[in-house]
Amino acid sequence: MKSIIFDIQKTDGDARLGSITTSHGVFETPAFMPVATQGSVKTLSPYELKKIGVQILLSNAYHLALRPGIDVIETIGGLHRFMGWEGPILTDSGGFQTFSLGRLHKFSDEGVSFRSHIDGSEHFLTPEMCISYQERLGVDIAMVLDQCPPHELDKTLMRQALNRTHQWAARSKQVDKPDGPAMFGIVQGGLSIALRKESAEFLVPLDFDGYALGGLSVGEPKAEMYEMVQLVHEMLPLNKPRYLMGVGSPEDIVVCIGYGIDMFDSTLPTRVARHGGLLTSLGRLNLLGSRFEMDENPIEDECNCHTCQGFSRAYIHHLFKAREFLAYRLASIHNLSFMGRLIDDIKKAIKEGKFHEFKEEFIAHYRSTNEEVRLMQRRKWVRSYRYKD
Amino acid sequence: MKSIIFDIQKTDGDARLGSITTSHGVFETPAFMPVATQGSVKTLSPYELKKIGVQILLSNAYHLALRPGIDVIETIGGLHRFMGWEGPILTDSGGFQTFSLGRLHKFSDEGVSFRSHIDGSEHFLTPEMCISYQERLGVDIAMVLDQCPPHELDKTLMRQALNRTHQWAARSKQVDKPDGPAMFGIVQGGLSIALRKESAEFLVPLDFDGYALGGLSVGEPKAEMYEMVQLVHEMLPLNKPRYLMGVGSPEDIVVCIGYGIDMFDSTLPTRVARHGGLLTSLGRLNLLGSRFEMDENPIEDECNCHTCQGFSRAYIHHLFKAREFLAYRLASIHNLSFMGRLIDDIKKAIKEGKFHEFKEEFIAHYRSTNEEVRLMQRRKWVRSYRYKD
Repeated sequence: MKSIIFDIQKTDGDARLGSITTSHGVFETPAFMPVATQGSVKTLSPYELKKIGVQILLSNAYHLALRPGIDVIETIGGLHRFMGWEGPILTDSGGFQTFSLGRLHKFSDEGVSFRSHIDGSEHFLTPEMCISYQERLGVDIAMVLDQCPPHELDKTLMRQALNRTHQWAARSKQVDKPDGPAMFGIVQGGLSIALRKESAEFLVPLDFDGYALGGLSVGEPKAEMYEMVQLVHEMLPLNKPRYLMGVGSPEDIVVCIGYGIDMFDSTLPTRVARHGGLLTSLGRLNLLGSRFEMDENPIEDECNCHTCQGFSRAYIHHLFKAREFLAYRLASIHNLSFMGRLIDDIKKAIKEGKFHEFKEEFIAHYRSTNEEVRLMQRRKWVRSYRYKD
Repeated sequence: MKSIIFDIQKTDGDARLGSITTSHGVFETPAFMPVATQGSVKTLSPYELKKIGVQILLSNAYHLALRPGIDVIETIGGLHRFMGWEGPILTDSGGFQTFSLGRLHKFSDEGVSFRSHIDGSEHFLTPEMCISYQERLGVDIAMVLDQCPPHELDKTLMRQALNRTHQWAARSKQVDKPDGPAMFGIVQGGLSIALRKESAEFLVPLDFDGYALGGLSVGEPKAEMYEMVQLVHEMLPLNKPRYLMGVGSPEDIVVCIGYGIDMFDSTLPTRVARHGGLLTSLGRLNLLGSRFEMDENPIEDECNCHTCQGFSRAYIHHLFKAREFLAYRLASIHNLSFMGRLIDDIKKAIKEGKFHEFKEEFIAHYRSTNEEVRLMQRRKWVRSYRYKD
């Protein structure tokens, strides 16, 4: 089966409740996609992800093309079989990674040349190759190749990058095969309302299966990101899924679902988990703190996950202190379960027409990471981004 | 319930098939105990261990006393509850660790003083404290504190260490409580037949619940270890379980069950797993090898473990290359499953009176690690032993 079927069952303000049918099953929206950059959601098995209730995973064509190589995965029978995940998979094209990871990357109208972050080998990637890679991986949703420049870029370069992104989107559409993956276009334009508008106006007539918002959550203040999401929302067709790339934190997800976003992906829940950050409805707990040394409570009383059902904060604190692998697993299981529960609560609220109340209530109780600290961390992460996640 | 009940159901030559009943359930013998040094079998959850068929775990009182501290575990409700493992647990006393890990360790007749390998803090451990720690952890089988000197030690020092080990064993017995854990004595004496004999003769009248063979598999040639095991076997009462500490490899286990050993523990299966070494009935595979890059077979066709049922060698090879946590887990699951299957096959062979045939067949097909390489690795490991496992 080609393509996907997007079915909106209910709206509440701009928030939408729906489902997307793929050839590997259905996932409900809004959806949070855990990130399996290299074909594995760090520390977790497909069995655990299924048990947590995860319905769709994100992987990365750039990473997989460099290692183990598209040939290898194709030989083994495609990405689903390779990684033992039967449900839907969306792959990012790697536009962001050629830029953030590849050394000596050089963009031309034809494509992007770069050196591998793994072994320094030279590579050249075109939009057409990128779609072909994702087809050969056998994924359900493919992202087009884009150029994702930093917000600080001057206007001329920003425009050049945007034009290129648009031409690449059009070229990707031309190699779209009836039995290939569904294809999402990516709206770029940084923090410029005019460029974002232009981008949406160029991409919408190409009739993609869905639209992503790229180049956000890369170090700009949250308020600016929210404003941009809200604006772009109005420029996109209501009957297509819209996906906010690389977002995010629990509060970002709650807010942006309110602006009509249907899909999210982020390494945040698994990345902070590995550093001892455990998500709760009141904010993040740092399990490395000595106050948890004798705390026999679970991370969250109301949580049904494997971690909360079987282990105390004291034990998880000990595992982190002792640098035991199991710490990273138990924390990752809880954080993805938390995201799943959050999304389920939001879906319920939309269904009952109470999304606004839910959002107000959530924001009132959830202690976000201090904005200044957050921005510093985020920029540091974007700059130092290596193939960790 | 105090103590344990050891029931021998069948013997075949010196090999024995039986079971040991503890207050946390029964485990069958011969038994291989995976090692949860710091209260976690590295990378694996209790749920996975149960699914693999593990019946008893080993942990380490020395490590747990230093971190998180006996108080913490006692407060949380004992080691079983702390780590979420409901089955039997045996703890090693830490005699080997004070020596191999502790800095500036100093043995006296009273006990051993040492500095923590974690933070350099000073500690003093007596045989009585060691038993008390294990009681407070609530484990099923406690080991007495011993002094485990290197084989190279001169005869006078060796004798002094042995005398001390014996006095400590006697003192441990004196603080034995009716509702405490079962207590195993440890036969020492290095590679001297005379000293081993003396050790067994001292310990047997103390009527321990079981007897361990200590100070073996620490860098001596396999042939010498086997000889010593065989000799000590004849010095111990047949109706008590005997436990060969820190052993071992598949071939060691097969051989030593033939010399009447009932219990084993070793970090080998999980340690080599984390370095890409996968156990099979033909020997060890190094999954880092490029020949596995496109190999769609499981590690072993005949294996029913989670890893072999769901994942190809190609995928596991990729995970190792990409340094994904999941590699260490999948490999550990397989290796412990392999050990479980090996022990099951041995039990079946003993039951059918075919142990000798099984042993011959196994040894004929199993390609052991080259003896010279093995000895070098083992000595290096013993010397550099840190709290990794």
